[in-house]
Amino acid sequence: MSERLARLSLNQVTTRRLSLPEAVRACAEAGIPGIGLWRDRVEEAGGGAARRLIRDAGLTVTSLCRGGFFTAATAQRRAAALSDNRAAVDQAAEVGAPVLVLVCGGLPDGSRDLCGARGMVTDAIAELAPYAASHGVRLAIEPLHPMFCADRSVVSTIAQALDIAELFPPGQVAVMVDAYHVWWDPGLEAQITRAAGRIAGFQLSDWVLPLPADMLLGRGHIADGCIDFRRLDRGVRDAGYDGWTEVEIMNADVWAAPADQTLSLVTSRYRHHVLSQA
Amino acid sequence: MSERLARLSLNQVTTRRLSLPEAVRACAEAGIPGIGLWRDRVEEAGGGAARRLIRDAGLTVTSLCRGGFFTAATAQRRAAALSDNRAAVDQAAEVGAPVLVLVCGGLPDGSRDLCGARGMVTDAIAELAPYAASHGVRLAIEPLHPMFCADRSVVSTIAQALDIAELFPPGQVAVMVDAYHVWWDPGLEAQITRAAGRIAGFQLSDWVLPLPADMLLGRGHIADGCIDFRRLDRGVRDAGYDGWTEVEIMNADVWAAPADQTLSLVTSRYRHHVLSQA
Repeated sequence: MSERLARLSLNQVTTRRLSLPEAVRACAEAGIPGIGLWRDRVEEAGGGAARRLIRDAGLTVTSLCRGGFFTAATAQRRAAALSDNRAAVDQAAEVGAPVLVLVCGGLPDGSRDLCGARGMVTDAIAELAPYAASHGVRLAIEPLHPMFCADRSVVSTIAQALDIAELFPPGQVAVMVDAYHVWWDPGLEAQITRAAGRIAGFQLSDWVLPLPADMLLGRGHIADGCIDFRRLDRGVRDAGYDGWTEVEIMNADVWAAPADQTLSLVTSRYRHHVLSQA
Repeated sequence: MSERLARLSLNQVTTRRLSLPEAVRACAEAGIPGIGLWRDRVEEAGGGAARRLIRDAGLTVTSLCRGGFFTAATAQRRAAALSDNRAAVDQAAEVGAPVLVLVCGGLPDGSRDLCGARGMVTDAIAELAPYAASHGVRLAIEPLHPMFCADRSVVSTIAQALDIAELFPPGQVAVMVDAYHVWWDPGLEAQITRAAGRIAGFQLSDWVLPLPADMLLGRGHIADGCIDFRRLDRGVRDAGYDGWTEVEIMNADVWAAPADQTLSLVTSRYRHHVLSQA
């Protein structure tokens, strides 16, 4: 395995059509040493079996996607969300994922109360964090691009994610820095510096226009859009982050492409457009 | 004219199909006392003629849209942009618009240098501000939603707009608070408070999902989406802003509707969902 790819991880949503065993095999063949998992694919494979399969292939699990969606109009629905998040923590522990990624949730149906929704997020994380810590799982609050504020995450910036994370010990609650979601932020560099010791992961996909009809699926391969990944990589490294870089691309065209071709592009773009030393 | 509509203005893009004389007549008939203009429609009518027409109808011009698009790859193209902005200032002065709205521009073609593009914006405003001031026109930097960062505005937040505006006297450079663009911002209330004396305008349209294929046209009538306008209105008023509120809706369905129906909806939604005292 190339030294230069030593911290590269494939978030398995990038090869969405592959089962977990297929994705693991594809990573091993492409020389990608890490894999970020999704709950549906882990459930399909079984947590224990997935863990053994990944270990036997010599790969490392870098994260589990995802928990969150804490915001809901009723206490009953918020309790159900918390219960589902505890199950996600259990799964992360079973499969050996050190990090559970949190997409915190948008405005409850019919609500215009952003402050209230943000309060629900903090309250839920306060309940979940000790449970996660006792299972050896670190929570990673992922700020989502503000275009998802209404429906997916009322946490939109690293600053805001840190404001929540800093209420808890750094080993319990940290942030996921996803380039696609935060590249535009004028406060980005300062907040990444502030995030030292609180960066639980680093995810990459590129901002490509025009957005497709499904806003979720507009992400491109590295270097197909306008994000300066090299600069961002340098920023998180300067902040002391020495963990994994996951490439996580949600894009119908990428999903339709042959997996070996996708992984080849992932590794070459990562080498040439991310790593700080050329 | 109703006292309660005394500070309501129609941004004429809301009735995009109407000529300027038609839009003026529609405002007068609907009891909307202000109108925000667009350059193409003013050119079509002629600046001096437009000014007389609007005055004779008893209306007030509240702004001119728009200048900006300062970012470009070459010095020659940046100079051309500045020249066009001086023409926009001239037109604002001629038509009696107190404010020229600035949409600052995205990344230059092929560039990934956000810092550089932001520097171009500040440099251009530094050149334009004295010219505008000498013509009695105040510049209003409009932060655009971060989903437009790549292609339309590298200025995405009120904080960032104020960082630029504060380099100049408040009468020369201020900010446009457009609800659609800033509603998601976790720092919104603090930044509106900070903007006291620097708010040059207040524009409204609602955040409605799903976004259409053309991201520019996703804005809805007040109360059709998820923005808490009453709270935002209270915020800008508490910051001392006593100027106009423009309703500015870019939406193909709204444009296809009869203008009198649109204006009736604009006034009733404004009364019932914006004004702080019910």
